[in-house]
Amino acid sequence: MSIIVMKFGGTSISNLEKIKNISNRIKRELKKNKKVFVVVSAMGKTTDQLIKKFFVVKKDIFNAEYDSVISTGEQLSAGLLAAFLDENKISARSLLGWQIPIITDSFHGKARIIDIPTKFVKKLFKTYDVLVMSGFQGISKCNRITTLGRGGSDTSAVAIAAALKAEICEIYTDVEGIYTADPRKVKKAKKISQITYEEILEMSSLGSKVLEPRSVELAMKYDIKVHVRSSFNNKKGTIVLSEEENLEKALVTGISSSDEDAKITLIGIQDTPGVANKIFSPLASANINVDMIVQNITDDGRLTSLTFTVANSECEKAVKKLKLSDIKFNKIHIDKKISKVSIIGVGMRSHVGVAKKMFETLAKNNINIQVISTSEIKISVLISSGSKKIALNALHKVYGLDKSFD
Amino acid sequence: MSIIVMKFGGTSISNLEKIKNISNRIKRELKKNKKVFVVVSAMGKTTDQLIKKFFVVKKDIFNAEYDSVISTGEQLSAGLLAAFLDENKISARSLLGWQIPIITDSFHGKARIIDIPTKFVKKLFKTYDVLVMSGFQGISKCNRITTLGRGGSDTSAVAIAAALKAEICEIYTDVEGIYTADPRKVKKAKKISQITYEEILEMSSLGSKVLEPRSVELAMKYDIKVHVRSSFNNKKGTIVLSEEENLEKALVTGISSSDEDAKITLIGIQDTPGVANKIFSPLASANINVDMIVQNITDDGRLTSLTFTVANSECEKAVKKLKLSDIKFNKIHIDKKISKVSIIGVGMRSHVGVAKKMFETLAKNNINIQVISTSEIKISVLISSGSKKIALNALHKVYGLDKSFD
Repeated sequence: MSIIVMKFGGTSISNLEKIKNISNRIKRELKKNKKVFVVVSAMGKTTDQLIKKFFVVKKDIFNAEYDSVISTGEQLSAGLLAAFLDENKISARSLLGWQIPIITDSFHGKARIIDIPTKFVKKLFKTYDVLVMSGFQGISKCNRITTLGRGGSDTSAVAIAAALKAEICEIYTDVEGIYTADPRKVKKAKKISQITYEEILEMSSLGSKVLEPRSVELAMKYDIKVHVRSSFNNKKGTIVLSEEENLEKALVTGISSSDEDAKITLIGIQDTPGVANKIFSPLASANINVDMIVQNITDDGRLTSLTFTVANSECEKAVKKLKLSDIKFNKIHIDKKISKVSIIGVGMRSHVGVAKKMFETLAKNNINIQVISTSEIKISVLISSGSKKIALNALHKVYGLDKSFD
Repeated sequence: MSIIVMKFGGTSISNLEKIKNISNRIKRELKKNKKVFVVVSAMGKTTDQLIKKFFVVKKDIFNAEYDSVISTGEQLSAGLLAAFLDENKISARSLLGWQIPIITDSFHGKARIIDIPTKFVKKLFKTYDVLVMSGFQGISKCNRITTLGRGGSDTSAVAIAAALKAEICEIYTDVEGIYTADPRKVKKAKKISQITYEEILEMSSLGSKVLEPRSVELAMKYDIKVHVRSSFNNKKGTIVLSEEENLEKALVTGISSSDEDAKITLIGIQDTPGVANKIFSPLASANINVDMIVQNITDDGRLTSLTFTVANSECEKAVKKLKLSDIKFNKIHIDKKISKVSIIGVGMRSHVGVAKKMFETLAKNNINIQVISTSEIKISVLISSGSKKIALNALHKVYGLDKSFD
């Protein structure tokens, strides 16, 4: 029995026309003698409306009642789609998280899937050709409805694909796939035909808006091929797969940028052991995440400066914490007009000179690099916001992405 | 452990103000050291909106998907109320039909409750003071959500009250109780303080709009006292109880009327054995319900006439069926300007002269009785619609209801 998992997001199931569209896609798969397991999000803006209603009585999302209320959105869309299929002579039924069951922990509002027994689903596939599951929801060991956090339907889809050993997990969304860069910033951005799990995880601003990172981690763990594609046309989208299966080993797969950081520089601090700890521990205890860090080197071991980035929204809080702490510094400098530009590619693992090419390109374009950080498959630089567009386009060209596949 | 069941209908839980109101009522019971089991309907017009959405994809209410979709209304209201209580330091949680479980048959859209195991609920009452259950819903043996038909939350409330051996089942609604007559037709109509199960079942037009008949049957079977009262004030409403417990044994408890019948008279039919069967079998097979019947007596056993009533909406269909059948008659006469007036009271079982007084009163008021039918605790007469108001008010007075208790 060959099973295909299809997940439809809120914009893909917001009205009758779109439900018909989904039905046609399902019919096409059934003609290929496949069983179809559909995962649906809530229709359109339903979840937002439910959250609004809940917040009138209680402002807490990590709550069992919140989950019971919010999960009705997916219950509604699964029931409607299954009824539509049934009305159109397709043998289908809906399934709620607790009916399968999708067993999760009890962390309400952001539960994690623990187990998915498949006995019941496999039995149902003997009767039905299509099963329509409410995404985003599960059931805790206490027999209460849980939800997996926003975007959790992606996770539901990949998890059920893994449990059922489905041949592929298709994620239907309102974009055509994942791009080499943000098309609004880089005109020559191209759709990526294949990308590895690791790359998409590093490509936060390009990938995470399309695919929930937790779902990617799960797909990676169970080696589930994920096909991110548009629900509005039949074009091939982007296939997310393992490095071994990715035959298009591009040096750099994509370029991303983010304007969500603020740069804080402490000038005139003592360059003594333990100073970094002294600075970062009050931030950590205030739950402020520090991203890139660079410490200047001093010759005489006396005064130095330390630069790091935090989320823009947490900048004021961070400065306040530092001023209240017992760290001695002469001056504090804040810069919010900065952008983080990253190049991502599994190819750079085995190739030298990728970073060199990046620095060279930026230098040629007179762009000053303020901070650098690297991982195995990603190089990020902090530059002034004004240079972002030039940097993105130049890098896109120099790594051969302008003339990408597709 | 003394448990009280409180059921709140859609109009009683339609906004935050009303949720606060419910919370205050609950607090009052908690102060009396009671555990409170709340049953809620969907908020305001939610169910109608959900049905409308469902009908876009499939026009069938006897359907598992219908139940899964429609039941979200009560899931929402139970979650919101429980969250509100929790936010206001009342130890409460919500419960869905499948969590208890409310076990029903698989007749989707109008399921019947088969069993309610109470082990889980009793365990929860050790932790929580208040449990808030989504009314109207259950779970079938196939592990699918069922609904109990419109007004099913009343049935849920009485059923859980029976299972938990609750001391009372309070039904909060938008009227103050059950009245001796329709206050729009009889100005001196009074709220009834106590009424028996049997009376309320006979009092279709007075009672069934307030209380679902199935819930009354259930209350009667398990001897559950039901208190029908307003959610907008604190006045005592109407208590529905067994004949043994009803200390106010009024001869006549209430008077009801209905304009929903049409009278059909077949003139000049053969008065031979089997003729009634010949007439009513084509109607029965067309699913037309015949209510009151009167056959004139002939001396010579030749030609006679037969009068009966059907629902107004089915009158034309009935006439067509009769004309197409092989029954011979000279003329068919239809009268839609008729009203059925009924007096109801368990007291009439043990008292003679109740019917006589009714006929006398109508005669004194020059009202012609067209058809009579009686049950053990009800006498109904068919009169012309024009006389209805006079009849209702005269009867209301003559049976002493004008100066009712309360």
